[in-house]
Amino acid sequence: MDKGAFYVGVDLGGTSMTAAVIDVRTGRVMGESKRKTRAELGALSVTDRIAKAISKSITNAGLKRQDILGIGVGVPGPIDPLTGIVVRCANLGASWDQFELGSILSEMIGLPIMIDNDVHVGAVGEFAFGAGKGLSDLIAIFVGTGVGGGIILNGKLHTGTRNSAGEVGHMIIAADVGPVCGCGERGCAEALCSRTAMEREIRASIASGQPSIISHLLEEAGRSDLSAGTIGDAYDAGDAVTIKAVSQAQYYLGLLIASCVNLIDPQAVILGGGVLERMGDAYLDPVRQAAQQHFLNKTDAAGIAILRAVLGDYSGAIGAAVLASERLSSS
Amino acid sequence: MDKGAFYVGVDLGGTSMTAAVIDVRTGRVMGESKRKTRAELGALSVTDRIAKAISKSITNAGLKRQDILGIGVGVPGPIDPLTGIVVRCANLGASWDQFELGSILSEMIGLPIMIDNDVHVGAVGEFAFGAGKGLSDLIAIFVGTGVGGGIILNGKLHTGTRNSAGEVGHMIIAADVGPVCGCGERGCAEALCSRTAMEREIRASIASGQPSIISHLLEEAGRSDLSAGTIGDAYDAGDAVTIKAVSQAQYYLGLLIASCVNLIDPQAVILGGGVLERMGDAYLDPVRQAAQQHFLNKTDAAGIAILRAVLGDYSGAIGAAVLASERLSSS
Repeated sequence: MDKGAFYVGVDLGGTSMTAAVIDVRTGRVMGESKRKTRAELGALSVTDRIAKAISKSITNAGLKRQDILGIGVGVPGPIDPLTGIVVRCANLGASWDQFELGSILSEMIGLPIMIDNDVHVGAVGEFAFGAGKGLSDLIAIFVGTGVGGGIILNGKLHTGTRNSAGEVGHMIIAADVGPVCGCGERGCAEALCSRTAMEREIRASIASGQPSIISHLLEEAGRSDLSAGTIGDAYDAGDAVTIKAVSQAQYYLGLLIASCVNLIDPQAVILGGGVLERMGDAYLDPVRQAAQQHFLNKTDAAGIAILRAVLGDYSGAIGAAVLASERLSSS
Repeated sequence: MDKGAFYVGVDLGGTSMTAAVIDVRTGRVMGESKRKTRAELGALSVTDRIAKAISKSITNAGLKRQDILGIGVGVPGPIDPLTGIVVRCANLGASWDQFELGSILSEMIGLPIMIDNDVHVGAVGEFAFGAGKGLSDLIAIFVGTGVGGGIILNGKLHTGTRNSAGEVGHMIIAADVGPVCGCGERGCAEALCSRTAMEREIRASIASGQPSIISHLLEEAGRSDLSAGTIGDAYDAGDAVTIKAVSQAQYYLGLLIASCVNLIDPQAVILGGGVLERMGDAYLDPVRQAAQQHFLNKTDAAGIAILRAVLGDYSGAIGAAVLASERLSSS
């Protein structure tokens, strides 16, 4: 990297976006810019907002556009990495169906663009400069509204034949008896261990008349949706309904990890996402226990590390920059 | 491969073994020798029988020991590929625990030895010269007494950190409600779609008083265990109890394939084993249907080929020879 090693990584979310200038030799964030996504404006206007966030992050880093080697964008939905086209983005609306994000953003910015999905770039971030630093084979699982993942093998993102690898949320772990998933099938891991799954369990318990402080906490916070923060607060306060829902989700997440480990046998599994960040090891320990109990090869079971993601909100931006540096420099 | 390209591949099973001289440039079987394993004799005597089968296969190929570059052995249990030590072989008895097969057989034969587990070498065989020829990324699943698998990525066997990759039989697909598996846990794929699982379902139906021709077929065959052949005969005869058990197993095998595809996104899934060989496409079609229904990415779902293994009993021997040629020539 004789020309320098600055790439901008963009983490595009349903409600907000982060653009950050990353030194891909060190993972250091040189400057950044965050803003609301404002998905209601449509794909083209949101892309304009992405371009503005990128420019601002470069200014904030004290750099000029010509110091930047390329841009990586993590998108919350399936994409085609070769054409830079977004297949669809359920969270962002129908204007993203087959949207040519790569070429449009590249024209706006005048720099080469690489796009991939948000969990793929998150996995690359944790691998390159986070919990997986120094490892070569790992699976990263991010638990939030949904459950997604990325696989690193031999130090490279395993994208799969259709760029669809790592869809851990749609591995079936409770055939027929599990809840119906957003994908329409029954028994997917996402329907059992996502934050959405916890929320469904908590609301069902409350609807059946079980006492809970959740309604009180939501009123206090002035919101209707159950955030990771609210779930964590109720859990810490000993709310029985919340503890039961979290325990179930932990158990199923453990089974999901065991299925992944029994298939791929990686060095480590890295877990990220809002609930885990809020609750930390209190959340992780029961997950580890359920997973290790279901490892077929229990030799060195403890050696298959189940780790917390450490980059938080930056895993996506850092990973997008790193992946851009790999793909744009080799093309 | 200037020195020639003849390796002997050995497929060691619980009841019989096959040694075959393979031209690893073409996959051609140049000569072979089969015999009973006679596990009751213990690991050392069985190893002596392996050595004799190897020598006989070389003679049958019209070759001499010095024409052979190395030996590969597929073992029905976990092994350490670096030391050549068998961890254990439940089917073969306790004398195989930590048995130094690699070094002992190498001393008997005077040739370098590579060992790996039977499904890993079977996957390599189907990849190199079977249903997966020309592909680079696939998962092979073998359904028999148990359910095992092997993963090929970028044209190489993915062994995993502890050589434990591919244990598809112990991916959890029916948490808590599935039958208890041989591994002690509940809901593993192996407990739901192996031949053993079909047999359990059939016997339970008969015990509950449902009419079936199975008992008659077993009497006719003069055996007590339900072979793939007997299951196939009863299925073909329209035996309702058998059709139900097979349909269940097909469905769960489809879910297992979907979980693997959603995680790894390979080019193809190859299915092998006795039941499939006996029943062919009548068995495979419902499996394909259940799998494709549960693919998250249904774009090109039909493009993720679900194929029949084509090497039959030879996948292990051919794969063991191919893997030996890769590992012994690079060391």
